[in-house]
Amino acid sequence: MAVYTDVTFEDLEGLLRGYDIGTPLSFKGIAEGVENSNFYLQTDRGAFILTLYEKRVKVDDLPFFLGLMEHLAARGIACPQPVRDQAGKNWSMVKGRAGAILSFLNGISLRRPENHHCQAAGEALARLHAAGDGFALSRPNALGPAGWRELADATNPRAEAVQGGLGMLIADALAELEKDWPRDLPTGIIHADLFPDNVLFMGDRLSGVIDFYFACNDMLAYDLAVTLSSWCFESDGAYNVTKARSMIAGYRSVRTITDAEIAAMPLLMRGASLRFLLTRLYDWLNPDPNALVRPKDPREYAKKLRFNLQVKSAGEYGF
Amino acid sequence: MAVYTDVTFEDLEGLLRGYDIGTPLSFKGIAEGVENSNFYLQTDRGAFILTLYEKRVKVDDLPFFLGLMEHLAARGIACPQPVRDQAGKNWSMVKGRAGAILSFLNGISLRRPENHHCQAAGEALARLHAAGDGFALSRPNALGPAGWRELADATNPRAEAVQGGLGMLIADALAELEKDWPRDLPTGIIHADLFPDNVLFMGDRLSGVIDFYFACNDMLAYDLAVTLSSWCFESDGAYNVTKARSMIAGYRSVRTITDAEIAAMPLLMRGASLRFLLTRLYDWLNPDPNALVRPKDPREYAKKLRFNLQVKSAGEYGF
Repeated sequence: MAVYTDVTFEDLEGLLRGYDIGTPLSFKGIAEGVENSNFYLQTDRGAFILTLYEKRVKVDDLPFFLGLMEHLAARGIACPQPVRDQAGKNWSMVKGRAGAILSFLNGISLRRPENHHCQAAGEALARLHAAGDGFALSRPNALGPAGWRELADATNPRAEAVQGGLGMLIADALAELEKDWPRDLPTGIIHADLFPDNVLFMGDRLSGVIDFYFACNDMLAYDLAVTLSSWCFESDGAYNVTKARSMIAGYRSVRTITDAEIAAMPLLMRGASLRFLLTRLYDWLNPDPNALVRPKDPREYAKKLRFNLQVKSAGEYGF
Repeated sequence: MAVYTDVTFEDLEGLLRGYDIGTPLSFKGIAEGVENSNFYLQTDRGAFILTLYEKRVKVDDLPFFLGLMEHLAARGIACPQPVRDQAGKNWSMVKGRAGAILSFLNGISLRRPENHHCQAAGEALARLHAAGDGFALSRPNALGPAGWRELADATNPRAEAVQGGLGMLIADALAELEKDWPRDLPTGIIHADLFPDNVLFMGDRLSGVIDFYFACNDMLAYDLAVTLSSWCFESDGAYNVTKARSMIAGYRSVRTITDAEIAAMPLLMRGASLRFLLTRLYDWLNPDPNALVRPKDPREYAKKLRFNLQVKSAGEYGF
């Protein structure tokens, strides 16, 4: 198996001695998640995911991520819930890595979501924003403007080799965003990565939200921009304003979007596309030979950024 | 996802229209199997594996492999069972590849099997041999001496770079085996790859045998040699004759091992270790950049081959 970290059944047995979740019936590495090793575990008491945190997820951040999932689940959000061991801890060490056992959510992520799925995702995002309120811990967004600057510097020398004009596109957009990035919009806990991969459906019903490992404190409207960016562009690069209107309507059914948030949307959309352009470009230029998942093409987000740079007002996004 | 072939939920929905196995609840690429893309599929009617056949499994061989699993399952062997579609076919095309939906078996493969697991595996192997009797189709072993010669020729120029003396070790062993390889032993359907990975246990009970994609017609005792080779060496390279005796006793509880088979065992063990040495060496020298599974170290089987070359009689193996 080429999950990053190999976990044998014997390792699993050792781990499960500390938990009260039954006898294992099945245990398989799954090809999911870029950042971590994930295993599907079925016991006679239920289905679980064992996640081992590799590379980018810092152990110091685990109390935030795992605590957040507990906080959200307690407020009715369908998200993975960390299982506590017999000592009450929600993570343990497995093969020298921090690992957590989480409840498994049924459902399937869609590659080609339709209008009503976008509506459901918008509504779920606003529910997350509301439910995050009152969470005791906080975590700054490591992938805000300062993080973009670091990634831009690290990728700049080789950006042109990926696509002509890419270095300049990034430099110009970043300079503008560093100057004009909004500062006074409503903030809270954001998911920060609510791509279609991270939303599960059973039939047409949204059954869960997963992968909270980019969650942080930041502007709520930026989270909506990230979600619009990942659900409402067609594969040919066209912005589908009908899907966007559905998503915005879903969001608004739970939380009011302020005028200041709407006015900032063109900038937030540029920021969202620059953020994913930069991380994808970095991963593209620095591929991990052990990764289970191929790097995603950064040019998809270069195209979205170019589109966003020509948008004059939030109305063009469906607001 | 970096399963070889990416299957979206929408592809899955299209495929499932041809089957009568319920509504999907969960669908995940799993990091299992070197040769194929495998997906875990749960529906409201049960758990299944979707396998897409890549590279080495030829479509022409599917009637043999899938028919064999049906034949064995009908004779009480716990193995994956192909699900037939509404037209009665046991495979279909998915994304340009042949694919089959198979029943999912609970159970976990062991990395460090103990004596009683070896006993159970030996017994299961002999049951397979008995149950294969009467299967209408046949398939020659592509990885017998003629196949070894091809692999030896293909790997010879770079074998020394992997380990000093490896080219000569292979050449000498192959020359002997081509000359003396047994021809008159009892034959039948063999699994040909019954490694611990391919045997599932629930607790101490053997719950199933999987991965029939090397199955073929060949000498039954060769299959026992392959199984002894993969279960009864310790990780330091030592042959564990206690485990071997357990495996042999398990096998004998179902099928008599003939004197001629016992006498041939030193040669068969050399052949078994050369076969896995050669395929691993080939994969090591020709890694597939898209593979989910890292190539296995050929030197493990070079060590086993060197051990086997010094064995004088079957008694040393526990017979």
